[in-house]
Amino acid sequence: MERDLAGLLFPGSVAVVGASGTPGKVGHALFRNVAASFNGPVYAVNPKYKELLGRPCVASVEGLPEPVDLAVVVIPAEQVAGVLKSCGERGIRNVVVISAGFKEAGEEGARRERELVRIAREYDMNLLGPNVLGLISTRVGLNATFAPRGAFPGEIAFMSQSGAFCTSVLDWAWHERLGFSHFVSLGNKAVLTEVEFLSAFGADPQTRVIVAYLEGVSDGEAFIRVASQVTREKPVVVLKAGRAEAGARAVSSHTGTLAGSDRAYQAAFEKCGIIRARNVEELFDYAYALAKQPLPRGRGVGIVTNAGGAGVMATDAVEWEGLEVARFTEDTARRLAECMPKAANIYNPVDILGDARADRYKKAVELVAGDPNVDMVVALSAPVAILTYAELAEILAQARRRFEKPFVCSFMAGELGEEAEGLLRGAGIPSFFDPARAVRTLRVLCDYLEIRRRPRPEPRPLEVDRESVRRLVREAISSARPRLGLEAMEILSAYGIPTARGGLARSPEEAARLAQGLGERVVLKIASPEIPHKSDAGGVLVGVDQRAVEERAAMLLRQIRRKFPGARLEGVYVQEMLPPGREVIVGVLRDPTFGPLVMFGLGGIHVEVLRDVAFSVAPLSRDEAQALVHRIRGFPILKGVRGEPGVDVPGLVEVVERLGRLAADFREIVELDVNPLLCYPDRVVAVDLRLTISGEEG
Amino acid sequence: MERDLAGLLFPGSVAVVGASGTPGKVGHALFRNVAASFNGPVYAVNPKYKELLGRPCVASVEGLPEPVDLAVVVIPAEQVAGVLKSCGERGIRNVVVISAGFKEAGEEGARRERELVRIAREYDMNLLGPNVLGLISTRVGLNATFAPRGAFPGEIAFMSQSGAFCTSVLDWAWHERLGFSHFVSLGNKAVLTEVEFLSAFGADPQTRVIVAYLEGVSDGEAFIRVASQVTREKPVVVLKAGRAEAGARAVSSHTGTLAGSDRAYQAAFEKCGIIRARNVEELFDYAYALAKQPLPRGRGVGIVTNAGGAGVMATDAVEWEGLEVARFTEDTARRLAECMPKAANIYNPVDILGDARADRYKKAVELVAGDPNVDMVVALSAPVAILTYAELAEILAQARRRFEKPFVCSFMAGELGEEAEGLLRGAGIPSFFDPARAVRTLRVLCDYLEIRRRPRPEPRPLEVDRESVRRLVREAISSARPRLGLEAMEILSAYGIPTARGGLARSPEEAARLAQGLGERVVLKIASPEIPHKSDAGGVLVGVDQRAVEERAAMLLRQIRRKFPGARLEGVYVQEMLPPGREVIVGVLRDPTFGPLVMFGLGGIHVEVLRDVAFSVAPLSRDEAQALVHRIRGFPILKGVRGEPGVDVPGLVEVVERLGRLAADFREIVELDVNPLLCYPDRVVAVDLRLTISGEEG
Repeated sequence: MERDLAGLLFPGSVAVVGASGTPGKVGHALFRNVAASFNGPVYAVNPKYKELLGRPCVASVEGLPEPVDLAVVVIPAEQVAGVLKSCGERGIRNVVVISAGFKEAGEEGARRERELVRIAREYDMNLLGPNVLGLISTRVGLNATFAPRGAFPGEIAFMSQSGAFCTSVLDWAWHERLGFSHFVSLGNKAVLTEVEFLSAFGADPQTRVIVAYLEGVSDGEAFIRVASQVTREKPVVVLKAGRAEAGARAVSSHTGTLAGSDRAYQAAFEKCGIIRARNVEELFDYAYALAKQPLPRGRGVGIVTNAGGAGVMATDAVEWEGLEVARFTEDTARRLAECMPKAANIYNPVDILGDARADRYKKAVELVAGDPNVDMVVALSAPVAILTYAELAEILAQARRRFEKPFVCSFMAGELGEEAEGLLRGAGIPSFFDPARAVRTLRVLCDYLEIRRRPRPEPRPLEVDRESVRRLVREAISSARPRLGLEAMEILSAYGIPTARGGLARSPEEAARLAQGLGERVVLKIASPEIPHKSDAGGVLVGVDQRAVEERAAMLLRQIRRKFPGARLEGVYVQEMLPPGREVIVGVLRDPTFGPLVMFGLGGIHVEVLRDVAFSVAPLSRDEAQALVHRIRGFPILKGVRGEPGVDVPGLVEVVERLGRLAADFREIVELDVNPLLCYPDRVVAVDLRLTISGEEG
Repeated sequence: MERDLAGLLFPGSVAVVGASGTPGKVGHALFRNVAASFNGPVYAVNPKYKELLGRPCVASVEGLPEPVDLAVVVIPAEQVAGVLKSCGERGIRNVVVISAGFKEAGEEGARRERELVRIAREYDMNLLGPNVLGLISTRVGLNATFAPRGAFPGEIAFMSQSGAFCTSVLDWAWHERLGFSHFVSLGNKAVLTEVEFLSAFGADPQTRVIVAYLEGVSDGEAFIRVASQVTREKPVVVLKAGRAEAGARAVSSHTGTLAGSDRAYQAAFEKCGIIRARNVEELFDYAYALAKQPLPRGRGVGIVTNAGGAGVMATDAVEWEGLEVARFTEDTARRLAECMPKAANIYNPVDILGDARADRYKKAVELVAGDPNVDMVVALSAPVAILTYAELAEILAQARRRFEKPFVCSFMAGELGEEAEGLLRGAGIPSFFDPARAVRTLRVLCDYLEIRRRPRPEPRPLEVDRESVRRLVREAISSARPRLGLEAMEILSAYGIPTARGGLARSPEEAARLAQGLGERVVLKIASPEIPHKSDAGGVLVGVDQRAVEERAAMLLRQIRRKFPGARLEGVYVQEMLPPGREVIVGVLRDPTFGPLVMFGLGGIHVEVLRDVAFSVAPLSRDEAQALVHRIRGFPILKGVRGEPGVDVPGLVEVVERLGRLAADFREIVELDVNPLLCYPDRVVAVDLRLTISGEEG
């Protein structure tokens, strides 16, 4: 991860192995692009030629006059390993393998790919690919792709797991004059993955925003670690495709990635502050805004329009996106009143009317943008005869420079607005026909503002008894009993989670003994991880009199044995009677990509019917645990409604935090439910538990 | 409403009153547009000229050689009434008043507008405006607007409450080559409103889809009646702006409309099958798709791509929009396997690989489109060297004609895709860079399919005792007691809604008498509409022994009198004790635009914290009542969860239906809550009631 990608991203010399002189061949398109774009030494490697497009051509890697910084390999799959080895021997540390025919092409290809990985490791190489379009680095002017279009220089670093999508984006960005600092096709990610590029782009001063199309993440934990760092410095926008069930199927048929579940991705992205785009339109709208605009200081939006309807639409969008229609200071209101016609609306949204010429528009924009309550400006205009869009664009470009606040605009025009687009682009002002789309890009600036401001303490050290849990987990594994229930309650106690008093009795007599000291009446629960819904199965007796415990425990065991003749019974769990409280559920689930997730939700119908739950990736800082608890819709219920007292939220947050610690410490825990955790105004108590343990760490 | 707008929308002759020869004037732009576009007789009316742009000009309306079908008036506001009267006298029945300076411009303007309405009524005129951009009717080739752009002929009828937005749409549509059948600026809607145009566009065979930008609806009930009819025949797409609190403020400052609440609009649109666009982009994406595409027969989508990533994105979008990735028949799968390369993915999404030429793409599209399980086709392509977008567009246009199924495509390109756009437009195939946006337009076709298929029975006649309720309502009004509580339970009984047994006692003695026959134990509730939360206030006694009723009732009255010395007490309500059941709330609210709304939700936290409620406009058919009950997220709770029995849903639906009838019959009911309605497996029972009555019908 902490690899040095300088030679890959900013090479001083490049060789193209498999460069071709035959138009239509990938090796031709690629070499032509490299030769046309790159100012440093460029070599072709191909035994057929002595020279290609005016550049020296050698027969083999061994014949290169210098160990180039970067070799780009575009030869049949079965020859790649040999060339890679030659590169290693020749001291070439950065290689892009364009060739397809690897993991994506069945078992034989997968074997070939493993061979590449072995060689790359042996020579400590930065290997990009195989199965890629290539890469572009605009600072060194290198286009090492076989795409028909190159890229303009810009502030956006882009990487994509789909090579075809790279071609699409290049063609479209050319059309939109959108520029890139780096442009990388990730391909099969045999060695270098999104993680290394995230880290490199994060450190690149030329890059203002990182944009990625991903179908899966190779190493979830490294991804979270690196992305969490990078997003403090610059925004990262990701389109994660393969979201749906059927989408995931398509992914697996595409680059062989086994995509994790969408909920895990969502939780991971939230944890490390990644901005998620739901589609291509959002991906580039967000990227452009984040690359070109300053960050706002708050959520207040000032709107200036010469058309009432546009103002209404923008205002709708402001509320829809959770931003605020700024309230002007008295000073602004007074000055607007002085210089606007009487029929104008001088309150936000400011409607300067359809007969406004450039001077009136300029005054309004300057007064609104200068108001201290306005953090962002939306400028709107319908086509009018007395004001050209070019004038308007000039006004906005000036104001944008002067006030250093984000500006977006919606000119709501077709051909008439085209003249102004170059001006707006030059000023970095996003412009859309639809005011709602313009406002949406302001929201994403606020999203990133919050991500940057968010405190990111490390999870605190917690006092826990790790040894006891380790022993219990080992026991479960060695006795091949992956499923545990109440008998494992001490796992929770060991991690400082308050549990109901009680214990496991192996016999009715022991039950009677254990019941002493648990109060006049107790609860008896059958302890068997093989009976999922104990209550429904008749496995729970509530309010059992102290004196009747032995008899009732014996009865309970008899009944359950009769009902579930094959089930393994651990005994009877004797537990104190607790008063009714608010039931919540806290769980742990091991995700194949991101490792342990913590789930939180209200109990009963809230989980089962309303699916009102939230996930986070463990371990959790106290802030993260708190955010998780607050995230469910039903949170106000925990705070108390209609005079009912609220529950001990800090205590609850701590249980979530400690369970996150447990999940992170013991990867052997595949699933765990604390259900219910009973919440009272002054404390929380775990009442029941189910977990599954696996010897294979996730 | 059943007005004949033929003369307005398809005039044979047109006069422009206030036509001007001075460039820059609205009267000039307008007359120039009319003269340039319209083939029938065109007259200018202006005492200054004898002739204008080669057309005859007369000094006054009286001087017109014929009573034209349509007069367009563009003169100062204070002269409009006089001209309108002249038009009336001259037998001109259709007038468009372009002039501003009416309701939108303060009290004086409002007075002027009322005068216009009076005159229009007197002469039974179709008056469009005032304060409009004008109208366009492409069938008769008339552009009676002062906009710089006209409109192409097409299948979309458009109306807008914002004139500036009309100008925007015209400019943009020109650029996009989007055509219209009619284009109407609604302005202040003094006489003609969206309702009359909805009806006229509905009857116009040239119009395939109706599109509206509205900030408010003038007559909610007429709107629902007409729209419900029209949407059976053709789709209606509405962007309702002024949604947010602050947006509503902007509306009132814009055209003086008092916008109803967003929830009421949502309920009304659902009732009459209007498709709601959330923003301008959706408005025209939906309009284009609905205008150009055939309706699908189901929700199955077939996807063909030459780029894996694009297929993944489209598949994500299909799931996101609630459509289905079609499962091919064995026949299709076999034939695809026969003609595709081995590495291709022949399951949906079909990935024909980046080296596919036109013939392979064509085969795949034809096999997929021909599959009986495929109702709609998504065609995707990244830029590749061996296949031009023009070839691809031609393939799709042919297949679209042959299979008569909806096609959308995403070419994911910039300049390279431009050559194909004209071909796709000609074939009516929507095309977007973003596959998600393409798929979204398929979803809207399915939305409309469902709207068309939806049964729309009238509300059934119900046996109710209208007289009793009328008496109670009159009493409440005449005694100036707008708020009623338990003492009005018979309103519910009169409408056939089961209520808990019981009655209002004016004295403790009467309470004791009433309690007889209600079981061993009863409930006593203080009856006072002025004490909102009876239970919290100590106004409810549960489980009172028959023999203690008199004493406890007296005590209850004493205590409440002491606690609320000023409150009006109706007495004590004696009610049977009911077993615990599932609590729901059914309510009525009178909306200023759409009249009575019925609300349904689960009781307690579901309403108060989770806001899990749904609204519908009364009266309700049984289907609508059922849909309302099903619409809340928590509906599965009513069906029964985890072994708990469900409740009497048909009984519940009938209560909703009957309450809708009550709300529709008595507009005097401003608000009504049946809370709780207790639901059991075999019955539902209303337990408590609050309502507010107003003498002014809504």
